[in-house]
Amino acid sequence: MQNLVLETIHARRSTRAFSSAQIDTKSLEILLDAATWAPTGMGKQLWQFTAIHNAEKNLELAKTVAKALERGEDYNFYGAPTSILVSYQRDENHAFLDGSAAVQNVLLAATSIGLDTCWINQIRVCCDDPAVRALLRSYGVPDDHIIIASIAVGHGTKTTAPKPRRDGCVRIVE
Amino acid sequence: MQNLVLETIHARRSTRAFSSAQIDTKSLEILLDAATWAPTGMGKQLWQFTAIHNAEKNLELAKTVAKALERGEDYNFYGAPTSILVSYQRDENHAFLDGSAAVQNVLLAATSIGLDTCWINQIRVCCDDPAVRALLRSYGVPDDHIIIASIAVGHGTKTTAPKPRRDGCVRIVE
Repeated sequence: MQNLVLETIHARRSTRAFSSAQIDTKSLEILLDAATWAPTGMGKQLWQFTAIHNAEKNLELAKTVAKALERGEDYNFYGAPTSILVSYQRDENHAFLDGSAAVQNVLLAATSIGLDTCWINQIRVCCDDPAVRALLRSYGVPDDHIIIASIAVGHGTKTTAPKPRRDGCVRIVE
Repeated sequence: MQNLVLETIHARRSTRAFSSAQIDTKSLEILLDAATWAPTGMGKQLWQFTAIHNAEKNLELAKTVAKALERGEDYNFYGAPTSILVSYQRDENHAFLDGSAAVQNVLLAATSIGLDTCWINQIRVCCDDPAVRALLRSYGVPDDHIIIASIAVGHGTKTTAPKPRRDGCVRIVE
């Protein structure tokens, strides 16, 4: 194929087991910068990318989310030492579109520099739970933002096999 | 930087003027394949990627969308010869998330092979207009799908300057 972009698009996996080794700040900054270069509707960029770059704080967030959603004791963002929270101004038409494009940039950028990731949906669902919102506020996430997604980031401890692509999803009308 | 993924994330632009030159089928297939490798919630992949790889049909779609939305006579997907429609099963929780990640894959894949693109939001808004839906049906887009986005694809005729990134969108909590 000889095209690192296409190779990376194929190589990206959802990692669900991370080592405790923290990622370095330089790598984190690369991911956050990649996020900001996604397209936004009308170029509005009404988003924020908040990295929880502290394993203890990240686990505290996971436990708070688990409580809000009545998940089990083992809910821990798969042990990832860092999360990147993608938030967007509430009630903005393009919030989920822009935010998801930014997530995909982060996932691909991470793959390209040898980091592993998992797209996490739980905070999106419970970002207005009072305990979750209090934590988000303490990180500087604006109260008028919703969470689009969080991204678990770290070093995976096992290889994830590619999931087969569903047949019949592509059509070309000539 | 020396990382083609990061370079491509930075180099991607929204192109709003295309030549009439059609893209070749091989390139189109690369873009459609890239779309299918985006992540999906629970791995469901309840999407379809439908390419309108015919300038006349693509213009007919633009004109039908323009009529539905009372846009001007000059609405023509910026003259792009091809559109890729990203659709997803209606009422699926992850539809906009998964679909937007797939769009971003297409935008980056296109940039990496020298094609230009623009993320188009209008069909999303009017995909249930009767005339628009009739056209979508004629392309094989399932009636129980909504349009997440369309992507204008072709060869740009002018360079788009990068839009400055908004300040203060990134926070790191240590």
